[in-house]
Amino acid sequence: MPETRTLRLEIEYDGTEFHGWQDQVGVRTVQGELRGAWERITGERAVIQGAGRTDAGVHASGQVASVRTLRDADYALVRGLNAVTGWDLSVKRISVAPPGFCARRDANGKMYVYRIFNGREASPLKRRTHLHVRRPLDAGAMNDAAGRLVGVHDFSAFRAADCDRADPTVTMWRLDVARDGDVIEIVAVAPAFLKNMVRIVAGTLFWVGYGRLRPEQVGEILASRDRSVAGPTVPPHGLELVRVYYGRRGEPPQDEAITSSIV
Amino acid sequence: MPETRTLRLEIEYDGTEFHGWQDQVGVRTVQGELRGAWERITGERAVIQGAGRTDAGVHASGQVASVRTLRDADYALVRGLNAVTGWDLSVKRISVAPPGFCARRDANGKMYVYRIFNGREASPLKRRTHLHVRRPLDAGAMNDAAGRLVGVHDFSAFRAADCDRADPTVTMWRLDVARDGDVIEIVAVAPAFLKNMVRIVAGTLFWVGYGRLRPEQVGEILASRDRSVAGPTVPPHGLELVRVYYGRRGEPPQDEAITSSIV
Repeated sequence: MPETRTLRLEIEYDGTEFHGWQDQVGVRTVQGELRGAWERITGERAVIQGAGRTDAGVHASGQVASVRTLRDADYALVRGLNAVTGWDLSVKRISVAPPGFCARRDANGKMYVYRIFNGREASPLKRRTHLHVRRPLDAGAMNDAAGRLVGVHDFSAFRAADCDRADPTVTMWRLDVARDGDVIEIVAVAPAFLKNMVRIVAGTLFWVGYGRLRPEQVGEILASRDRSVAGPTVPPHGLELVRVYYGRRGEPPQDEAITSSIV
Repeated sequence: MPETRTLRLEIEYDGTEFHGWQDQVGVRTVQGELRGAWERITGERAVIQGAGRTDAGVHASGQVASVRTLRDADYALVRGLNAVTGWDLSVKRISVAPPGFCARRDANGKMYVYRIFNGREASPLKRRTHLHVRRPLDAGAMNDAAGRLVGVHDFSAFRAADCDRADPTVTMWRLDVARDGDVIEIVAVAPAFLKNMVRIVAGTLFWVGYGRLRPEQVGEILASRDRSVAGPTVPPHGLELVRVYYGRRGEPPQDEAITSSIV
């Protein structure tokens, strides 16, 4: 019998025209687009596991996927896949993974960034990747509130009603908010996130930013475990999956770029 | 008779779906879109002068325009214009200009940035704003070559064949190239540019970047005044008009962000 191996794929996509990561009948998804491309190029029907099941409209610059295959991790495979996927999906790199590697199960952490354009008039050049918020936001207050969510907490107040994860406990390794001119970025790093968690956290910080909540109230919302008192689920197009970490479980990723902010 | 005044408009656009700045019959242009919006909102037929006549596909985050009008520079005018223009065009601010102000004639300098994504596989999230160059480029060599174009020179070798400017002399105040990860940015500041000049300069630096030219040969190309020996006119979508300067003529703009690099 021919030998199979597990390959690791690094993937970038503009989520605007995808109905999210997960394969669904009748709509265009990232997983479906990749599966179709894989079959066309390799002749294999494969299950492609993604580390993060991003929602419709969410972007990714650092998504990771895994696939069991007879194919080698050669550059011709990268070129072939990219030749048949849409312009909005790109396989950046393919490498051989350890036997049994699963991009989803083995992920040790993920970094998401939520971007807000906080100028009075819309920015056409940032329209696909930033939420436009006209009202001036106090990024300092948002960052103060964000700090109250760092650590191990029950995040029930910050997850979608239909989230199917049994345990609502999340270790938020990093959550901070910084302004650069008219752009505000919210950076979140955790071993895993609950459904819509980053968008609900961002919506709650957004309330702090315009003064509807004081920073300390975010701690109270967390303690309440009540979704109805947290902020709205903000639109997906400001969100991007930037990075997936693999390493020892339960430890913050040892990454120069982020450890300075990790608790 | 009612009194007219001159207003100054600051404008941002995603150039992808515009046939450039300048009004033309039968195609969508930035000037035409603005003229139509102006007429709809103010009832006036106006001539809107733009500081930079950007080519088809070129973006602008800092375009400036002027218009003679009976209207005040109120916020309702900004909102009205933005309500009727496409999503890809935004009037960021309107203010009262000195009498007789002309955004084009009075401009003292312009800053353009040309962006290259220099990774092996395409970047969907940078696709509208960066030229994708797969071949690794030596940004240090490009920057060395760029330095040879700074100063007062006859730029005949770097202008389109149909450029109608009588004098090909340009004072290049700043031209430099820097890499940040997979992104290379070419920044050019001058009182004015010849037709396609930034794109031909970028195309020539691009030849240096992959070793087809040595940096010192760019000085020779400049001296030749021969368009046929310079590099290609690179595609428009990597180019953005970032800023227009107003001030005393013949002097580099006194701007903290750029003076450190200006000769």
